[in-house]
Amino acid sequence: MVAPLKVGIAGLGTVGAEVVRLIEQQGAALAARSGRGVRVVAVTARSKKKRGLDLRGVDWAESPQALAEDSNVDCFVELMGGADDPAFSAIETALKAGKSVVTANKALIAKHGLRLAKAAEQHGSALNYEAAVGAAIPVIKTLREGLSGTSVNRVYGILNGTCNYILTRMEHEGLSFEECLKDAQRLGYAEANPSFDVDGHDTAQKLAILASLAFGTKVAQTAVYVEGISSITPEDLRAAEELGYRVKLLGVAVRTAKGIEQRVHPTMVPKSSSIAQVMGVTNAVTIDGEGIPPITLVGPGAGGAATASAVVADIADVARGIRATPFGRPVDSLRATTKAPMERHEGGYYIRLLARDHAGTAATIATRLAEQKISLESIVQRHRNDGDVNGSAKKASPVPVILITYATSEDAVHRALKAVQRDRVISGRPQVIRIEKN
Amino acid sequence: MVAPLKVGIAGLGTVGAEVVRLIEQQGAALAARSGRGVRVVAVTARSKKKRGLDLRGVDWAESPQALAEDSNVDCFVELMGGADDPAFSAIETALKAGKSVVTANKALIAKHGLRLAKAAEQHGSALNYEAAVGAAIPVIKTLREGLSGTSVNRVYGILNGTCNYILTRMEHEGLSFEECLKDAQRLGYAEANPSFDVDGHDTAQKLAILASLAFGTKVAQTAVYVEGISSITPEDLRAAEELGYRVKLLGVAVRTAKGIEQRVHPTMVPKSSSIAQVMGVTNAVTIDGEGIPPITLVGPGAGGAATASAVVADIADVARGIRATPFGRPVDSLRATTKAPMERHEGGYYIRLLARDHAGTAATIATRLAEQKISLESIVQRHRNDGDVNGSAKKASPVPVILITYATSEDAVHRALKAVQRDRVISGRPQVIRIEKN
Repeated sequence: MVAPLKVGIAGLGTVGAEVVRLIEQQGAALAARSGRGVRVVAVTARSKKKRGLDLRGVDWAESPQALAEDSNVDCFVELMGGADDPAFSAIETALKAGKSVVTANKALIAKHGLRLAKAAEQHGSALNYEAAVGAAIPVIKTLREGLSGTSVNRVYGILNGTCNYILTRMEHEGLSFEECLKDAQRLGYAEANPSFDVDGHDTAQKLAILASLAFGTKVAQTAVYVEGISSITPEDLRAAEELGYRVKLLGVAVRTAKGIEQRVHPTMVPKSSSIAQVMGVTNAVTIDGEGIPPITLVGPGAGGAATASAVVADIADVARGIRATPFGRPVDSLRATTKAPMERHEGGYYIRLLARDHAGTAATIATRLAEQKISLESIVQRHRNDGDVNGSAKKASPVPVILITYATSEDAVHRALKAVQRDRVISGRPQVIRIEKN
Repeated sequence: MVAPLKVGIAGLGTVGAEVVRLIEQQGAALAARSGRGVRVVAVTARSKKKRGLDLRGVDWAESPQALAEDSNVDCFVELMGGADDPAFSAIETALKAGKSVVTANKALIAKHGLRLAKAAEQHGSALNYEAAVGAAIPVIKTLREGLSGTSVNRVYGILNGTCNYILTRMEHEGLSFEECLKDAQRLGYAEANPSFDVDGHDTAQKLAILASLAFGTKVAQTAVYVEGISSITPEDLRAAEELGYRVKLLGVAVRTAKGIEQRVHPTMVPKSSSIAQVMGVTNAVTIDGEGIPPITLVGPGAGGAATASAVVADIADVARGIRATPFGRPVDSLRATTKAPMERHEGGYYIRLLARDHAGTAATIATRLAEQKISLESIVQRHRNDGDVNGSAKKASPVPVILITYATSEDAVHRALKAVQRDRVISGRPQVIRIEKN
């Protein structure tokens, strides 16, 4: 049998500690599965506290950089986080020394992935990052290796558990975004500063990575249009339910006649689709390959154990001798993408308006939409305060109107709604949610 | 660049022809993705008809065996089908000649997989069979490589599209098994002799393969307990719906204190589970890893394009130089399994009885269950012929009673039902469906 793969781990937080434990527990199975033993020989972390790990015989490197330079290490595992240094330099050092690298760091891969992949290709090393998107869901492997025979037309998914948890609770309990966010923070599902999650940036980083693997484009977070979930109301979720949809924060990358469109926004998906069934912190990715029905992968998108599971699988691939090109194709062959011009996006739209309840309002709205050649799949007019004691005041108060359009352009929707606002037949800002069909 | 991988294809049916087309169309992408061109250099098929393929410059081998022996072929692709010869001998010949082999043939892998894997291991060749289970769903790759870091506790799924199509239509339209089967045959979803599908044997072959990959056991179709769907009635599906379940034909392989239990049978699954959402001919596999939430893979389980997609991905892995051990671990390290003794199976049960409508029946049934220490989660007594013109005859006709038990042993259920039958308080045979919790 070959000498064991000698692993160095930088970062001993929840994931790092769990990786050490898994390699210990799964040692025999790992050796049987990869034809080679796997042994942690060195670690580094900010503090030397015990963490309940048995680290006898394991070297403590004084820095990530020192660990990356350690000639005793074959495989450098980066679990510190942070898009830049010290993680970036340490990984680059390891790759240039011919070591394989495993990381769970999506921010770093989204920002520096291309440069690191180039170094990996030049030195014949692996750069594996399955845990960076969807934790234990094998989506990187599926796109990088499993679908080599298929031209991908669209990849989309629920990539952020915090947002899906909030939307699920809003839907099930009729609560507001703010209430659910507070609860998510209390339960540890959302950060004290939730913007990175709820404004869609976390999803955008992951989507940029998936788009590169699916379409052979350069990873570019700046090419992703991003919109978060804070504008979604319980009324939207109720209306969606009634009309046969659910609202999810999706990351969508799709091949269009105008190029690859990458976007993150709240999205209405048909209730019957696989993605609509995904509740709580669970993640899911759907891949539409040319000529074949969609493939959907569902599972835990975060959590120490799930992330560690993917990290150890990546290490096992290194032990097995698998050296997949980091982005599926050589970095030099990846094409540049530009930011999706959303005003040219085409699709169906959900529009919720507060219409002033007087004669001619409906006709005005219908006319403005018709002027932009927008056809309607359905219209729902909802009566407010039904059965309310103030029923007598009903006549004067605005009435919610919900419109579902057939495919049209975003531009047309904006022009129609601007005209309706100028006509002063609605109150406040219209709510607009894009529809994604399966 | 390395010389292209020279592929020989045995069998030019729907899948074989599609593989030739995909390799042609995806040529550039395949080369970029695998770092090596892929070229079909030889084929063999029973008839030399045209099939709309451009086969200029491609050799016609006179038999699968001749193709397997062709020194110009690096990778032998078997798409003829059939569990035995000529497929078996040709594959063995190719492996022993150091060629890598790709096949979509589940029957052959289930029957001869161990012997072929052994030959592959001895000669350093790949034996890839992603398409054999769940077509384009990357379930083999996920179990063989993607979950190396995780101890699997259970793998289960909907592995036969014909059965799921029939159950879905029965559920949605209230039709009988026989009516739906006839329709499935008319639409080409079921064979003229449907037994292999509807009696669960197709599912059992696939399950035996998945169980081997998940648990490191020897593939053994004979170790699988098998029961088909022909006994399921629309009444069962209606009752399931009411009680929060759906009925699916599942293949389940699970680690128990008594060993690995492998079984195929109609199963009640909670309506909220990912697997319950899978409708029509779609397949799905759920993997429960130690300490992590379930991972579910959903997609097309059959069809020429989906199968060809998986075959080409397997070929690309060969081109990439990936040589995974065929069953995830060396054949010699795989453990034997024995057939699950279902009488010792433990779980919840759905029981539907036709109770004679006279005093003391309910008490008798309850007593017999209690004697076997079976606790009930719910009881539903359904009145037959409600609103029927023969309502006056109601008193005398038997009343359907539906019981959902908490976890108990199959043995206990059988003993209780035998006692109830001896007591002559029910008509006909009781219907029993096992419940699988997520």
